[in-house]
Amino acid sequence: MSERAPAETEAACFEAGIKFGTLYHQFAGTPISPDSAASLAAAMEEAIENQPHCRAVRIDIDTDRLAAAIEEGPAEYTELTGEFMDVEMEIAYEDTLVVAEMHLEDGYPLMEVTGVRGSGVER
Amino acid sequence: MSERAPAETEAACFEAGIKFGTLYHQFAGTPISPDSAASLAAAMEEAIENQPHCRAVRIDIDTDRLAAAIEEGPAEYTELTGEFMDVEMEIAYEDTLVVAEMHLEDGYPLMEVTGVRGSGVER
Amino acid sequence: MSERAPAETEAACFEAGIKFGTLYHQFAGTPISPDSAASLAAAMEEAIENQPHCRAVRIDIDTDRLAAAIEEGPAEYTELTGEFMDVEMEIAYEDTLVVAEMHLEDGYPLMEVTGVRGSGVER
Amino acid sequence: MSERAPAETEAACFEAGIKFGTLYHQFAGTPISPDSAASLAAAMEEAIENQPHCRAVRIDIDTDRLAAAIEEGPAEYTELTGEFMDVEMEIAYEDTLVVAEMHLEDGYPLMEVTGVRGSGVER
Repeated sequence: MSERAPAETEAACFEAGIKFGTLYHQFAGTPISPDSAASLAAAMEEAIENQPHCRAVRIDIDTDRLAAAIEEGPAEYTELTGEFMDVEMEIAYEDTLVVAEMHLEDGYPLMEVTGVRGSGVER
Repeated sequence: MSERAPAETEAACFEAGIKFGTLYHQFAGTPISPDSAASLAAAMEEAIENQPHCRAVRIDIDTDRLAAAIEEGPAEYTELTGEFMDVEMEIAYEDTLVVAEMHLEDGYPLMEVTGVRGSGVER
Repeated sequence: MSERAPAETEAACFEAGIKFGTLYHQFAGTPISPDSAASLAAAMEEAIENQPHCRAVRIDIDTDRLAAAIEEGPAEYTELTGEFMDVEMEIAYEDTLVVAEMHLEDGYPLMEVTGVRGSGVER
Repeated sequence: MSERAPAETEAACFEAGIKFGTLYHQFAGTPISPDSAASLAAAMEEAIENQPHCRAVRIDIDTDRLAAAIEEGPAEYTELTGEFMDVEMEIAYEDTLVVAEMHLEDGYPLMEVTGVRGSGVER
């Protein structure tokens, strides 16, 4: 079981992961309220779409959950974390398309590849 | 020369500084291009305006400078740094208004208070 | 009540605020566990001490609180937020010394100037 | 060419990508000097090793390049970017080991998978 170079679909999935780590850790901690959620979502989508091989990013910020967190919390805003957003992304790398998403699962913002379409491993 | 509690205008200037540090270090490193500059500027303004005592934030991203940096650089985007933006902010803290800005001075993104209007020290 | 330039002590407090905003928003969101807390605290102190006029930074990360949050949470680590750290900072700006701190107050990571010693307003 | 679920090695590469995006965008922009480079490198390694499936992270910050950038620049420190560091990482995901690295290539901090060893696609 020796080490080998990555297949095209593996490199594509690596690229998808980079975008998710970027998105999360660039923007986590941003001051946010229901009123500012839309502008932040738009900026995050456009920022990440600048990165190589990133065809589309869709971000859905749950303003009800934001409002509830602010209601319970000590201030009139809160900080962005994974619990407030769902993300879907399409990565086009050579002949491979990867679809990946982030959603809350048992309280953890799970990032995962949901689909691979390509010429790499299994056709 | 003993230690004393801050005057109102000093506390107001402290609040202004917090907002500048937040703005810069939350968003520095964001992938950016001339096309995505407007959405990022809007999101930064609204995000920081969520913070306590922050009355207004105006951000001007220099898309010509962005385009020039991308032209010289290795990719079709670059990362946000202080060299690409001017910022002006108004902080209203109790009876004090602080105006502060960030602009490039000799290559350094200088943050400074440009005006204090208040009941604190000199009336 | 016209606008005037900042006094030296006000500029010093602005500088202190910048450092707090930087510290918080550069590092909030960092993956952290009780085992990695010490290296992160040390890096944060040294990073912020690089900034102009910053004489000393002391950070105390509450590893018991970290352990409790991880116990309750979905993963074997958590993300750094203000609820896990106390910060104390000394800013030396011209002839003014500012002492400022961040600590949790009613669930909010309150940043405040606790002492001003200087030649600026009251001698 | 229909969409399918990711193979184990593809999921492993996705995990590797997440760690690189996290590392870069959590810490890019941190104030840094040759003296503070070692503590930041140590903190980055330990922070990322907290993340799931991350077996090892090695970061090498080029202090000569830092010193040169500071020499040319307007301040006594600079901000961390990809041009100052090489990173190597090992991700262990189920039966797959992924080795990935970041290094400067033609001025761009290139992140790539350099080796895959596993039970997934080609044995």
